[in-house]
Amino acid sequence: MSSAAPRPTGPDHLWSVDEHLEDVLTTVRPLDPIELNLLDAQGCVLVDDVMVPVSLPPFDNSSMDGYAVRVTDVAGASEEYPAVLEVVGDVAAGAADLAPVGPGQAARIMTGAPLPPGAETVVPVEWTDGGLGGGPVGGMRARSLAPEGAFGQVRVYRPAVARAHVRAQGSDVRAGDRALEAGTVLGPPQIALLAAIGRGTVRVRPRPRVVVMSTGSELVQPDEALGKGQIYDSNSFALTAAARDAGAIAYRVGAVADDAEILRSTVEDQLVRADLMVTSGGVSVGAYDVVKEALSSVGDEDGPGGGVDFRRLAMQPGKPQGFGTVGPDHVPLLALPGNPVSSYVSFELFVRPAIRTLMGLTDVHRPRTRATLAADKALTSPEGRRQFLRGAYADGEVRPVGGSGSHLIAALAQADALIVVPEDTTSVEPGAEVEVVLLV
Amino acid sequence: MSSAAPRPTGPDHLWSVDEHLEDVLTTVRPLDPIELNLLDAQGCVLVDDVMVPVSLPPFDNSSMDGYAVRVTDVAGASEEYPAVLEVVGDVAAGAADLAPVGPGQAARIMTGAPLPPGAETVVPVEWTDGGLGGGPVGGMRARSLAPEGAFGQVRVYRPAVARAHVRAQGSDVRAGDRALEAGTVLGPPQIALLAAIGRGTVRVRPRPRVVVMSTGSELVQPDEALGKGQIYDSNSFALTAAARDAGAIAYRVGAVADDAEILRSTVEDQLVRADLMVTSGGVSVGAYDVVKEALSSVGDEDGPGGGVDFRRLAMQPGKPQGFGTVGPDHVPLLALPGNPVSSYVSFELFVRPAIRTLMGLTDVHRPRTRATLAADKALTSPEGRRQFLRGAYADGEVRPVGGSGSHLIAALAQADALIVVPEDTTSVEPGAEVEVVLLV
Repeated sequence: MSSAAPRPTGPDHLWSVDEHLEDVLTTVRPLDPIELNLLDAQGCVLVDDVMVPVSLPPFDNSSMDGYAVRVTDVAGASEEYPAVLEVVGDVAAGAADLAPVGPGQAARIMTGAPLPPGAETVVPVEWTDGGLGGGPVGGMRARSLAPEGAFGQVRVYRPAVARAHVRAQGSDVRAGDRALEAGTVLGPPQIALLAAIGRGTVRVRPRPRVVVMSTGSELVQPDEALGKGQIYDSNSFALTAAARDAGAIAYRVGAVADDAEILRSTVEDQLVRADLMVTSGGVSVGAYDVVKEALSSVGDEDGPGGGVDFRRLAMQPGKPQGFGTVGPDHVPLLALPGNPVSSYVSFELFVRPAIRTLMGLTDVHRPRTRATLAADKALTSPEGRRQFLRGAYADGEVRPVGGSGSHLIAALAQADALIVVPEDTTSVEPGAEVEVVLLV
Repeated sequence: MSSAAPRPTGPDHLWSVDEHLEDVLTTVRPLDPIELNLLDAQGCVLVDDVMVPVSLPPFDNSSMDGYAVRVTDVAGASEEYPAVLEVVGDVAAGAADLAPVGPGQAARIMTGAPLPPGAETVVPVEWTDGGLGGGPVGGMRARSLAPEGAFGQVRVYRPAVARAHVRAQGSDVRAGDRALEAGTVLGPPQIALLAAIGRGTVRVRPRPRVVVMSTGSELVQPDEALGKGQIYDSNSFALTAAARDAGAIAYRVGAVADDAEILRSTVEDQLVRADLMVTSGGVSVGAYDVVKEALSSVGDEDGPGGGVDFRRLAMQPGKPQGFGTVGPDHVPLLALPGNPVSSYVSFELFVRPAIRTLMGLTDVHRPRTRATLAADKALTSPEGRRQFLRGAYADGEVRPVGGSGSHLIAALAQADALIVVPEDTTSVEPGAEVEVVLLV
């Protein structure tokens, strides 16, 4: 068995959590970029700086519904002595042909509409009689109901300084500015900006396609009848959901029997849609742990460099792990242990960062914090293993949930954190400070 | 115009942010529940308590690869004086027919396999010679390569207490226990538990379908040529992305011209796929603000109770807002102002909580915190308006980003927080403590 990256140690080496993680993260590379429609790029990472092709706003425009006028024509205007101007027409948003505003004239202008030539400022409609002759108004009458409002006279009751209520061309961004920096994650405001500068598509790293399968002849699909010695497949559901939560497009293959030939052909079949593969089960020291046997040579014939390395980690849960690449395209594959808690914890520690690395994110890990252990008795942990216990975190305190057994799914479902007990610590007293991985 | 819920005030009332929000949240009801496949229910809210139909594990099973034996047969075993037992066969995971283990016998057992009758404990394979006669081994040889390992003799080098490495039936959850409580949001661990107890489908409130359209004759789609007086439509992209981020299934209709008849018929067309509708633009006091005109009577003919109410809020940005219901099914509709920053801030304050209420979530708001204002000069804010300025938050400090102009999309794209300036505050000095809405 060969491996994609040279690995520093022999088969008997007990890998640390950090060594294994480093092996995964130096092997997995960000996916090649692709041009995507804006809304398909949500949550993805921008590959290049995006420059502004045209200034925003593209032209001087009104920030209010009102009247575009010359400054001198409204100087000194008051309710007692209003300026009376001739209305020369409407300027709606989107208007292209703009009649000039001359001395003694006003154009009725809508928010976002271009400032017509000759006009120097905008008086809001609330500072005028709206052309009705009856004192200040709260708004304009609808064009469809009162088309005559575009003409006639308007009384202006307050003066306006030059360029009041005018948004200047380029006051948001200027042509040639950098709109967004390479590496930006595209959320709604970033998508707003890209659309505003006219970008309908954008070059990003796509969401990775992750194929998930569990292995084990004892596994039955939910809603089917459970026979003697059988249990329900939960890992393929949990890992698929977790992959989606991490940002991937995840495909759940389901459970594959403990048969090396079936497993190998299933993996080979799925390669076509996989940027990353995740299996659970079959990686320990049992006589039916066929994942090792099956994955040592998947699609390997075409060239060197592939293969999955199976190893023991100084970790609890999650001691047995496999990692490597499969197929002619060297698709990364993480083979997780089969116990539900082991596979979930392994996902959080190794697969989630791998998925986020494929996406091109730099912040690939769950946040961590320090917390005070709130417990009735000391936590115990095996010497030489980094233990990850399930916990509930709130307000700087973390409380263990359930025991250390890697089959305790119910407790996992109540947890929102992992309590980290370092390799050299075998006991943690209540009240001690511990490191916590926050899962939500 | 009538409204779905009785509204406390007349058309001239200046609504507070809280009054408007309360009106929205008392009108919008959680969607009716639906039975969904597990993976389709990710992120959704459980409607009923889910009880455990069958204990987990369903049977006593081994937590290790090893040998199932009787306690007395391995009592006092050591490397010097190993217990030598007759191997009577394999018990693989999923095995249904279990041969009993008699005195002096051992069954080779795999992780997860049922404990056979007669066996009282499990010794890990690492405590044995694996049947090879050469001292302690690291694991079993694969069944496919060495089928003889299921028979012959095994030397056991360490004793085991009763039920060591045995996971007892029901030690995770017991039949009749409550697996998950109504109101639980289904993340990967909760999906794991539901699958493990055999639930392939689950009753949840579905993700709401949100139809998004922007209005304005000046709007052009990105990647098309920009004519005189035109700008690119960004709101329909930003609001669609924001709706998805909030948990909705969002449909972007795009930009509709300022024509009441076209707008009305578009809204009526879209009703069939809408649990919530969101528009932007056309809600202010201009002569071409056709949204009011169009939405006062959408699909209203069939019965009473519909209609959209347009109002002014004591808020900046976001003063003009519309809210009500449209169509015979009284689909809630929020009509947001058209300035990009106004529409985005309005979404965060009103639409996002509405979407999360439709989902049945109880925690519908963005988190808020207190922060120290880091700025070169005082922030100013109009009297009587609650102002929401864009900011960048880090480590207890918030720094304003860009100005207060509601057309400043570039600054919005650099912000991750909103700085709240209360109605009665007109100036905030640098170093003062402010309330902050965290947007990510």
